[in-house]
Amino acid sequence: MANIKHLGEFGLIERFRSQLKTRSPRVIKGIGDDCAVFSSKQDTLQLISTDALVESVHFDLKTISAEQLGRKALTVNISDIAAMGGTPYLAVISLGLPQSTSTRFLDEFYSGLQSVCKDYKIELAGGDTVASPQQLFINISILGEARKDRVFTRTGARPGNQIFVTGTLADSAMGLQLLKTRKIKSVSSKHCRALIQKHLEPIPRIKESTLLAKSKLQVTSMIDLSDGLVQDLSHLCGNDKLGAELYEAKLPFSQALKNVCQQKEYDPTDWVLQGGEDYELLFTIRQEDVKKLNSLFLKADAPVSHIGEITSFPGKLVLNKINGRKKFLKASTGFNHFKRSQRS
Amino acid sequence: MANIKHLGEFGLIERFRSQLKTRSPRVIKGIGDDCAVFSSKQDTLQLISTDALVESVHFDLKTISAEQLGRKALTVNISDIAAMGGTPYLAVISLGLPQSTSTRFLDEFYSGLQSVCKDYKIELAGGDTVASPQQLFINISILGEARKDRVFTRTGARPGNQIFVTGTLADSAMGLQLLKTRKIKSVSSKHCRALIQKHLEPIPRIKESTLLAKSKLQVTSMIDLSDGLVQDLSHLCGNDKLGAELYEAKLPFSQALKNVCQQKEYDPTDWVLQGGEDYELLFTIRQEDVKKLNSLFLKADAPVSHIGEITSFPGKLVLNKINGRKKFLKASTGFNHFKRSQRS
Repeated sequence: MANIKHLGEFGLIERFRSQLKTRSPRVIKGIGDDCAVFSSKQDTLQLISTDALVESVHFDLKTISAEQLGRKALTVNISDIAAMGGTPYLAVISLGLPQSTSTRFLDEFYSGLQSVCKDYKIELAGGDTVASPQQLFINISILGEARKDRVFTRTGARPGNQIFVTGTLADSAMGLQLLKTRKIKSVSSKHCRALIQKHLEPIPRIKESTLLAKSKLQVTSMIDLSDGLVQDLSHLCGNDKLGAELYEAKLPFSQALKNVCQQKEYDPTDWVLQGGEDYELLFTIRQEDVKKLNSLFLKADAPVSHIGEITSFPGKLVLNKINGRKKFLKASTGFNHFKRSQRS
Repeated sequence: MANIKHLGEFGLIERFRSQLKTRSPRVIKGIGDDCAVFSSKQDTLQLISTDALVESVHFDLKTISAEQLGRKALTVNISDIAAMGGTPYLAVISLGLPQSTSTRFLDEFYSGLQSVCKDYKIELAGGDTVASPQQLFINISILGEARKDRVFTRTGARPGNQIFVTGTLADSAMGLQLLKTRKIKSVSSKHCRALIQKHLEPIPRIKESTLLAKSKLQVTSMIDLSDGLVQDLSHLCGNDKLGAELYEAKLPFSQALKNVCQQKEYDPTDWVLQGGEDYELLFTIRQEDVKKLNSLFLKADAPVSHIGEITSFPGKLVLNKINGRKKFLKASTGFNHFKRSQRS
């Protein structure tokens, strides 16, 4: 099978360019020069984020297809723009490729990237392709923009603010667990397949983020869930400056997660609290805006759950359990990227 | 010695943030949120470039110090902005770190980065730090801006345009060769040291690029030399749409290169033509602007050489040798990143 050694760097750039056809009028020079050249819109603020994914740390080529990997690599970046209320418009990608990478793999990878670019009107304007002796790695830097007064940050939550989250949680984490124990691409049960899909093909919450950005609601803080609910909530609490109470009864579980947890005798609440790679939006609003928020999301048919409240108790994250008890949660249970490869 | 396993991801981010103190008024949110937030200047075009450097492909930790690596990683990106006449202002960095990376290495690396940020007034506004099982890798994406009518691209050279290059060529390539054969950080001869320094600590040609951008000269095409003079010149010739004549007598050699070539019985012209990692600017202007260009660079005490002319002969790159003969040059002698690790 043809591999990239035969194409060479310029052959790769050509292949890349011919496959990525989205052309935005604001991009004056795309792939093929020393830089991409583009214009920014007046009266906006610019957002930039960068994310690296490394083979055998963040993904396993035995369980994710090249196309899914292309989609996911861009999706996790889009999620960062969504987390601040922005609209993504341009990305650049670096690929570190082992010599053995096949051109077929690359074509499928680009096809995945391209489909996400199309869905979210993002121009892939440039990149770098280099040799990587062992692992494949991908780095994407993404640009977005937001109205000057509508950039949502992690800092700004106040005691009494109400905590909301989009979608359902821990589906991706359970999907990963299923993939790890089975090491196969297709599994039998409908529920397992749904969870695995949530892991391999996450959907960035751009629709929900735009809904918030275009509303008049005061979003006091926002983050996208990548390291799990408890870990990421602690960022909205200024790490240990504020606290939060969560209501177990209100945490959003999918039917698929409930079903698999029941089968495996797992506690679904533990999964939802620790999760990881949810790419849902976690945000806070003022108490007086709760009704408006619910009505806004209901009208737009966008899933959102009211899961708790910010408190003034420094560093105290409390779960109010269905059985009436309280459980103290530790933020430090999050993912340490350097201890070991826990994810795949 | 402390290594990153003990710091964890958030410890690393904190360490990173506390060491990078440059704060630009246009950066509203730097390191620590989902995205960095910044404003772009009105009436400018934005430039973006991304570059990945991989251990044992692009650098060898036996021959480059952590601080030099930090400096060089950012410098090669700045060079891409310079190549289009822009001014860099913001960068984001991803680091793929083996578990064994020491905190001392990181501190020195950040110190190198920081010094370049300070020199060129660049804000390091965010990044990602991930585990990399084997090789260290670095990815930097850089943003710059340029006046709308002063963006210089690779395409635009016309037959009769005159070819110029800044600085001296092949010093870096020879420096690398010296490092590879000696595998030590310090060498005895003054000339060898100078060449090695050109390889390990290149200087981006921002001053010269700004000189061109602020002048009224019509720069018809420009590129920064990373793959060698012949290879990069072929890009200015539209790969094979135009040709070029170079004059051997006018190629810029440093005294150090001449001296080492003489000792080793190398042909310095071959080195200058093929080079690699020069990070000098290669550009074309109209014939009638040659005098103005020379006077502009002379006044600014900026080194520039008038080395040839664009011709209408498709794909023909000709060297007019000092002995009166002509030599046809092949662009395909450039560096193929996927064939083998030729550079280090």
